[in-house]
Amino acid sequence: MKKETFGTGRVTIPTDVDVVPETLELMRRWGADAVRDCDGTDFPAALREVDARIYATYYTTRKDNAWARANPDEIQQMYLMTPHRTAVSDTLSIRLLEGLHPDMLAVNDRDDLSRWWEVIDRTTGEVVPAQRWDYSPETGCVTIRAEAYHEYTVSFLAYILWDPVHMYNAVTNDWKGVEHQLTFDVRQPKTRAFTMRRLRRFLEEHPYVDVVRFTTFFHQFTLVFDEQAREKYVDWYGYSASVSPYILEQFEKEAGYPFRPEYIIDQGYMNNTYRVPRREFLDFLAFQRREVAKLAREMVDITHAMGKEAMMFLGDHWIGTEPFMEEFPSIGLDAVVGSVGSGATLRLLSDIPGVKYTEGRLLPYFFPDTFHEGGDPVREARIHWMTARRAILRKPVDRIGYGGYLKLALKFPDFVAYVESVCGEFRELYENIRGLAPYCVKKVAVLNCWGKMRAWGNHMVHHAIYHKQNYSYAGVIEALSGAPFDVRFLSFDDLRADPSALDEVDAVLNVGDAYTAYSGGENWTDEAVVSALRRYVYRGGGFLGVGEPTACQHEGRFFQLAGVLGVEEETGFTLSLDKYNWEEHEHFITADCGEAIDFGEGKKNVYALPQAAVLRQVRRGVQLAVNEFGRGRAVYISGLPYSLENSRLLYRAILWASHGEGELRRWFSENSRTEVHAYGENGRYCVVNNTYEPQSTVVYRGDGSSFPLELKAGEIRWFSQT
Amino acid sequence: MKKETFGTGRVTIPTDVDVVPETLELMRRWGADAVRDCDGTDFPAALREVDARIYATYYTTRKDNAWARANPDEIQQMYLMTPHRTAVSDTLSIRLLEGLHPDMLAVNDRDDLSRWWEVIDRTTGEVVPAQRWDYSPETGCVTIRAEAYHEYTVSFLAYILWDPVHMYNAVTNDWKGVEHQLTFDVRQPKTRAFTMRRLRRFLEEHPYVDVVRFTTFFHQFTLVFDEQAREKYVDWYGYSASVSPYILEQFEKEAGYPFRPEYIIDQGYMNNTYRVPRREFLDFLAFQRREVAKLAREMVDITHAMGKEAMMFLGDHWIGTEPFMEEFPSIGLDAVVGSVGSGATLRLLSDIPGVKYTEGRLLPYFFPDTFHEGGDPVREARIHWMTARRAILRKPVDRIGYGGYLKLALKFPDFVAYVESVCGEFRELYENIRGLAPYCVKKVAVLNCWGKMRAWGNHMVHHAIYHKQNYSYAGVIEALSGAPFDVRFLSFDDLRADPSALDEVDAVLNVGDAYTAYSGGENWTDEAVVSALRRYVYRGGGFLGVGEPTACQHEGRFFQLAGVLGVEEETGFTLSLDKYNWEEHEHFITADCGEAIDFGEGKKNVYALPQAAVLRQVRRGVQLAVNEFGRGRAVYISGLPYSLENSRLLYRAILWASHGEGELRRWFSENSRTEVHAYGENGRYCVVNNTYEPQSTVVYRGDGSSFPLELKAGEIRWFSQT
Repeated sequence: MKKETFGTGRVTIPTDVDVVPETLELMRRWGADAVRDCDGTDFPAALREVDARIYATYYTTRKDNAWARANPDEIQQMYLMTPHRTAVSDTLSIRLLEGLHPDMLAVNDRDDLSRWWEVIDRTTGEVVPAQRWDYSPETGCVTIRAEAYHEYTVSFLAYILWDPVHMYNAVTNDWKGVEHQLTFDVRQPKTRAFTMRRLRRFLEEHPYVDVVRFTTFFHQFTLVFDEQAREKYVDWYGYSASVSPYILEQFEKEAGYPFRPEYIIDQGYMNNTYRVPRREFLDFLAFQRREVAKLAREMVDITHAMGKEAMMFLGDHWIGTEPFMEEFPSIGLDAVVGSVGSGATLRLLSDIPGVKYTEGRLLPYFFPDTFHEGGDPVREARIHWMTARRAILRKPVDRIGYGGYLKLALKFPDFVAYVESVCGEFRELYENIRGLAPYCVKKVAVLNCWGKMRAWGNHMVHHAIYHKQNYSYAGVIEALSGAPFDVRFLSFDDLRADPSALDEVDAVLNVGDAYTAYSGGENWTDEAVVSALRRYVYRGGGFLGVGEPTACQHEGRFFQLAGVLGVEEETGFTLSLDKYNWEEHEHFITADCGEAIDFGEGKKNVYALPQAAVLRQVRRGVQLAVNEFGRGRAVYISGLPYSLENSRLLYRAILWASHGEGELRRWFSENSRTEVHAYGENGRYCVVNNTYEPQSTVVYRGDGSSFPLELKAGEIRWFSQT
Repeated sequence: MKKETFGTGRVTIPTDVDVVPETLELMRRWGADAVRDCDGTDFPAALREVDARIYATYYTTRKDNAWARANPDEIQQMYLMTPHRTAVSDTLSIRLLEGLHPDMLAVNDRDDLSRWWEVIDRTTGEVVPAQRWDYSPETGCVTIRAEAYHEYTVSFLAYILWDPVHMYNAVTNDWKGVEHQLTFDVRQPKTRAFTMRRLRRFLEEHPYVDVVRFTTFFHQFTLVFDEQAREKYVDWYGYSASVSPYILEQFEKEAGYPFRPEYIIDQGYMNNTYRVPRREFLDFLAFQRREVAKLAREMVDITHAMGKEAMMFLGDHWIGTEPFMEEFPSIGLDAVVGSVGSGATLRLLSDIPGVKYTEGRLLPYFFPDTFHEGGDPVREARIHWMTARRAILRKPVDRIGYGGYLKLALKFPDFVAYVESVCGEFRELYENIRGLAPYCVKKVAVLNCWGKMRAWGNHMVHHAIYHKQNYSYAGVIEALSGAPFDVRFLSFDDLRADPSALDEVDAVLNVGDAYTAYSGGENWTDEAVVSALRRYVYRGGGFLGVGEPTACQHEGRFFQLAGVLGVEEETGFTLSLDKYNWEEHEHFITADCGEAIDFGEGKKNVYALPQAAVLRQVRRGVQLAVNEFGRGRAVYISGLPYSLENSRLLYRAILWASHGEGELRRWFSENSRTEVHAYGENGRYCVVNNTYEPQSTVVYRGDGSSFPLELKAGEIRWFSQT
């Protein structure tokens, strides 16, 4: 860093050729020490000598249509599946690209169709032999000799003729007359060699650049648009666009078994993160991570050799770089930057090990969807900052920044002023807590199929889209992102490999809907898994289940840990059983709750076993209950959207489950809209008002002593522990 | 019948020794032509010569404790399963009768435990070999050499020492000092011979009795009480109390494969009607039906030989006599009587083939739970009569009647007067419609795992208990019970045996929650089933799905007929897929609906495929949608509790699905609170007000001509078609 004082630094801003003086002015006001270009902007020559670090976005897989056109066999590919189509006679014809944007994709019929495509009878699950179907390039259709009234799908490869992020940016920003950027596959030999040359040339041609911001490496997450250029399918974690026969042949060799398109297609569910992952898909992920890391390392080495830093954007073509997996540090990156809209997305970044620094791109982007006449970017920014700040106080990113078109932001002086205050606040808190461990009252593990591979990203759809089906679960992860717990993410495979992993934590959480990867599905029929958890709780551990925890219909139970949780779900099979345990009890967990608790979508059909204590039920559906199992304790919650009140409820629930009631008022603020964070031995602590209204509270120190405190709207007040 | 005029007859009343003059008075007022005793009452000698038919309840399996005590090996038995218990060391001890009423059951440890009991590791599903467990009669416990932290259950046989119905009547009516009635098993050789002698003696000793009301034959439905004498488990269709080693050995011989307790226990779900039945259980049911029919026939023959009629009570020990199955008519009964609280329970009786007459025991029973100071029996009676009457108008029972203690009813003169009006109304309508076929606009089939075996009883828990989980589906059956459709019940096995069964109907309904026997569970992965239905609809048939129709996770679909229905359920696996089809459309089906439609519990996560038309959605959850599939049509409804408005909605939905929009205003009343029923060719028709308020309407005749009509509260107005 060229410069770093309390009043300046740790902030990156975007620029463009038409806002040079404004860039300088905002750098001063916001204390920015880095400037960057964006997709669709150019870095102004006038700023090359500015007293700041200069980031340059670099796209490894696009922005060279000449190369792509010259090497059509190395254009990127993706697996797609047609919708289910019903045969109504003995012949069925399915047009492959129906419902897809015609500019984006082209069927790959160069490679051996019988090897890389699959036609599946979805009524029986059987693969249709290649002799029974054929593809016509003229019509774009596969014609199948079918069984009447069976349903069929075709899994096929298509070339990506318009980079999905470029397409998204072009559509969102209404770019006119912009040539569609073709993609090319760096994993393939010609493009690989070309790419390394191209990177070197770029570095040579941009001597003023300090930081190369890779956007990103090689494989775009799954993103497809429909005929009307509307988003059709998006999975931020999706691997279906990281394929080609070249890659898949390598995978076959490594895996030692034949590849099947169905390993990627997954009945059309495309192995999204809600699916309990199958072994072959996990093998493929591991293969991709290793190969991506090797190749990315090569680019990082080239960057370093030219005296520049290498930064990765956590998004777009980030597939294969899961930052919490062991391959990641081997890439040798200096930094990771990513978009931050909440506590969970913040920690997706700030928890990344093995890099020199992390940087949070705060929302909103300076894009016309927010920065238009009548828009309210301050409102949006406040919501995002308030939620992200909770998590920053647990584990800070090292820098913040903004993206988009600066000239759009300049039209909103209130927004410019608000960002100025955010930048100052960020620098102050960073100075106070850098390098210090935050006080953690308990260690907790979130148990699901993914473990650390999807740490902090649980229940996310795209990056963090609200869905009726996910907010009641994502709220738990969001609450944890800013809470005084040491949080780890444990997979069922981790648990099978080493059941003693449980001994390291005070409580285990299992959160999600039945049969999803987040609750675990068939893993709960594995005696090793259920025995380990029963033993853990029986011997004193805590277990918290949210939604349909441990659910999988098996041997007379829907919740496999019903005996631990003290609750079970009525799926229609136990209506004949009379249920008498509905009385609500007062409890430590609900001591701060008013009458109404927001369980989000909740669950309607959960009932308590006789031994459990119901804390809340709605129309004979248990929403909150506790149970003792041996020396351990379990809590059932039907759903927990993120709110300050629910965050407090979860805090109390975890303390109760881990026998920590006595530790409640340690580094604690009585008013649940405020929180206390303490750092290190004899370091500092702060009390933070998580609302934009003034708040009164009583603050408890680590020794239990207390004092009253008034906080202004949004205020952070810092104190010394000694 | 001794006597039958328009103003009298077709009514049965209960009596007792202390209400002889009152009985005679009520016989006159209500026009009763039959009198009966009840459980806990005696038939008064003074009434033996009354000018009415005399019914006598007869209990084949109880009311002779001396016999039962002398033959303890032939006391009735039932299968029970303990709750799941967790081993926390290598030994686990489970007390078998924990949580059960101590007076009701005694463990059967006479028979070979290793053959008739099963200890199951419910964590793995494996049977624990008999060498690894033993039973101690002293402690009443089974002790298992266990795997620590596995869960275990014990399936065992117990003697029924207190007849469950006698216990229920004793508890409900607070009988003091009543000796518990033991049970005996008529299927076993000594008791069988004894029973036939006992019946003959009874008939000889009761020469004044005209009708023997068997209450009932040999096997009580499943009914168990807990330590506090509260109902613990009840299944009106349950077979778990129809077992004994004697019976099961016969079954083994007939079935040709070894019996397992698990065939009855079913993981503790006891094969209740929500469970998709397994082959072995269906085999057992068929075996029981045949054996019960043979033995019941013997008793009926004895009854006939003594010049008396044989009437069966549809309830209590009715197991094995499913009246819509082919064995039933072979019993040779003259009549069936049963309790009626709704249209569906009415048709459970009135549709019974092969008997001379059916009789509906109207609710409420004259029991202290309703007939107490401050009780409102008229209110209850009006609700039941109004719903039952709709169904009577489609298919009448031949008689009505009441049960309980007459002296309780006498304390409520309003109730006595109300029943007088009901009796008159019943006789009038019966005279008008006897022997005539009601006009049916369409033929429909309800498709589920049970078919005609559980016709009209779908979704029932006990006889008709309201549950949050069943009312939204039971409402469809209730609506059908009084609607102008020819309704049949089709099982998946029927469909597999003869797919042309579909050709006989205009529309098929599939109603219920996923994985239950009512929606069908794994039957939807059978290509024969889905192909038959797709073919049927494609060629012009109608399909209506309610709740989670055709649901079973398989090959990329949750609703297996999603392509037909045009809707699919979001189970978390398709959150990455963008869904744009949410706009609501006006439609023929909703033309009579106001803004709000009551979908009951509805469903939250159903979305429309692009081709469907959404009629109603709530917070992005489709509640009502239509779809065209080939020449056929499908309707999705999330739930449909019974109401007059919903009954109209279903009527319109079936008409639309079967292309019958043009037949809407045939024998039709514009006001949905009123209905028209027409009978025979040139017979009569009536317009009925299904509310207790006056209603105005426009009535359409069969030729489409119409006239306005005002109806008084609850009125039925009769007209001639010619």
